[in-house]
Amino acid sequence: MTIENFMNKAISPWMNQEGPASDIVMSSRVRLARNVRDLSFPTVFTEEEAGKMLRKVENRLGGQYLPGLGTLEMVRLKELQPLERQVLVEKHLISPLLAKEFEMGGVLITENEEVSIMVNEEDHIRIQCLFPGLQLREALDVASRIDDLLENELDYAFDEKLGYLTSCPTNVGTGLRASVMLHLPGLVLTRQIDRIISAINQLGLVVRGMYGEGSEALGNIFQISNQMTLGKTEETIAEDLDSVVKQIIMQEKVARDTLVQSSNIQLEDRVFRSLGILSNARILESKEAAKCLSDVRLGIDLGFIPNITKHILNELMVVTQPGFLQRYAGGPLNPKERDIRRASLIRERLALEDKPNEE
Amino acid sequence: MTIENFMNKAISPWMNQEGPASDIVMSSRVRLARNVRDLSFPTVFTEEEAGKMLRKVENRLGGQYLPGLGTLEMVRLKELQPLERQVLVEKHLISPLLAKEFEMGGVLITENEEVSIMVNEEDHIRIQCLFPGLQLREALDVASRIDDLLENELDYAFDEKLGYLTSCPTNVGTGLRASVMLHLPGLVLTRQIDRIISAINQLGLVVRGMYGEGSEALGNIFQISNQMTLGKTEETIAEDLDSVVKQIIMQEKVARDTLVQSSNIQLEDRVFRSLGILSNARILESKEAAKCLSDVRLGIDLGFIPNITKHILNELMVVTQPGFLQRYAGGPLNPKERDIRRASLIRERLALEDKPNEE
Repeated sequence: MTIENFMNKAISPWMNQEGPASDIVMSSRVRLARNVRDLSFPTVFTEEEAGKMLRKVENRLGGQYLPGLGTLEMVRLKELQPLERQVLVEKHLISPLLAKEFEMGGVLITENEEVSIMVNEEDHIRIQCLFPGLQLREALDVASRIDDLLENELDYAFDEKLGYLTSCPTNVGTGLRASVMLHLPGLVLTRQIDRIISAINQLGLVVRGMYGEGSEALGNIFQISNQMTLGKTEETIAEDLDSVVKQIIMQEKVARDTLVQSSNIQLEDRVFRSLGILSNARILESKEAAKCLSDVRLGIDLGFIPNITKHILNELMVVTQPGFLQRYAGGPLNPKERDIRRASLIRERLALEDKPNEE
Repeated sequence: MTIENFMNKAISPWMNQEGPASDIVMSSRVRLARNVRDLSFPTVFTEEEAGKMLRKVENRLGGQYLPGLGTLEMVRLKELQPLERQVLVEKHLISPLLAKEFEMGGVLITENEEVSIMVNEEDHIRIQCLFPGLQLREALDVASRIDDLLENELDYAFDEKLGYLTSCPTNVGTGLRASVMLHLPGLVLTRQIDRIISAINQLGLVVRGMYGEGSEALGNIFQISNQMTLGKTEETIAEDLDSVVKQIIMQEKVARDTLVQSSNIQLEDRVFRSLGILSNARILESKEAAKCLSDVRLGIDLGFIPNITKHILNELMVVTQPGFLQRYAGGPLNPKERDIRRASLIRERLALEDKPNEE
């Protein structure tokens, strides 16, 4: 498989698109947790109930065309290789939990991979919409449209007072988790990030790394999402997050300006050294790769590096995850082999770009 | 000044040539210390005597054509700018001592800069021949020819029992210092170098860095020379050194083989990371530059890096010295500015080479 083919297949089509504020906001995500009334919830259901749920979703939604979004393709996770399940996690199309407890799990995915609907995760249904840049409102609109569509087919577990019922009480009410993936090298390099995270936490929002709960903020990428799902409308939850994100964007911009003014040549040096390492190293651990990718993306944003596409950070952060690397290699790799494969994948991907000229 | 022009002017023509064993031996040098009988030695002479010596050499040797070596051009150091004197030191054409005590100093240099004859350094005359690769015998032959020529013009201070008389007793006898500049990354990386240096010392040889006494062994470059000038013939001194160097070459080769066999990908990674830093950094301290240049040269020798000329190490180790950097910049630079200039000079020089293709 050539690197072009691999990248084309690996990357979700929406990742190549630019969204609003996409120099700082990598993606916006909305997910709705839903359950049906006539079956036990997944945390306690029997295999029979799980199978019934899976068939029901497959029959009613599999192959269905969503106007403007494409056709929903049903995938039963049991039928995939472990590596294929891992790749779906790395693309954020299914959760690590569903990949782990895959026996009765399924997922409906649209062609451009903006929409995925998990079946039999912690809840019967989890509708997810992923958009490039800052588009929480748009993601919520699409998720709600799909939600309406599903509501016609399924009898949702809904309580007049509480709202949508979910397996975990933290999701009861709207069942909505809205989140944005932010690239914040400026706030990290100017050492403001800890202060800002603690301020965000005080607003009832949660800050995590790129791969959710417990994942490290590799590559200066932070995921911010709402904690509360109850007592606010879906729109207010999305708007409140949106307004916090806009403030963070402003602070990140100020931090980048400060960096450029106070240490232009040091910053340029850092950025180009990272580019040099990415284009030359033969062994790259994920942590170093993420750090260098973040630097290069910052260098692109600041105009130091011409001729490299912006979404290289988004792309390479995803395809250098273990599952993708092993798919690219065509078989299982131990951690040392992964580091070698990661280095060669990044080199080959960078070689597709025009090399920046010496100034 | 374009980088091509600068490099062409900066580099002594002999440095672009390959010599025997030049994958490990960068250069061979022979110098003969001589004094004339009728004047006080430089450590004690008067300004009048120094002037007399300088005029005598200029009159008798300035402009003289040496068959096969070219014309001797006389340079009075007082007439040079401080930066120009520094550059002569960095090219090894004069000693740091002569650059410091330059008032009555001079130097005769052939066009290709293989031969330089210092006047009024620690001794009245110091004949020096510099050859690429391992050519001690050849360097000694040329030095001896020049010595014979000078002996016709000058009345040397010679004692039947002691031999040539010199200012410092460590040079009495033959007045010969033979030395080789070795690139020994294999012995450094396999941690054998300390043991080998101590063995060399026990043989009565001295190990120093690239810029002589007290200079650090930057870039894994070691200068090995004889200590004793008395009690052996010139030929024996050169042959003894030559035979030790040949043993070191063998050990360095074994070390490189061991490295390739035991850690091929780690070594390749190290080499290419260094190439990445040299081709991308915006700030480079001399120590890091030397380390990276050594790695790249090793990578060229081992066949990891095609399309880069071997003598890039020799060249860039010289032209990234402070004097050259300031000449390239066209004026004085503080250390921070030098690090920036060093990085850009190396980047520009590397950009002249064909970039290595991805394997």
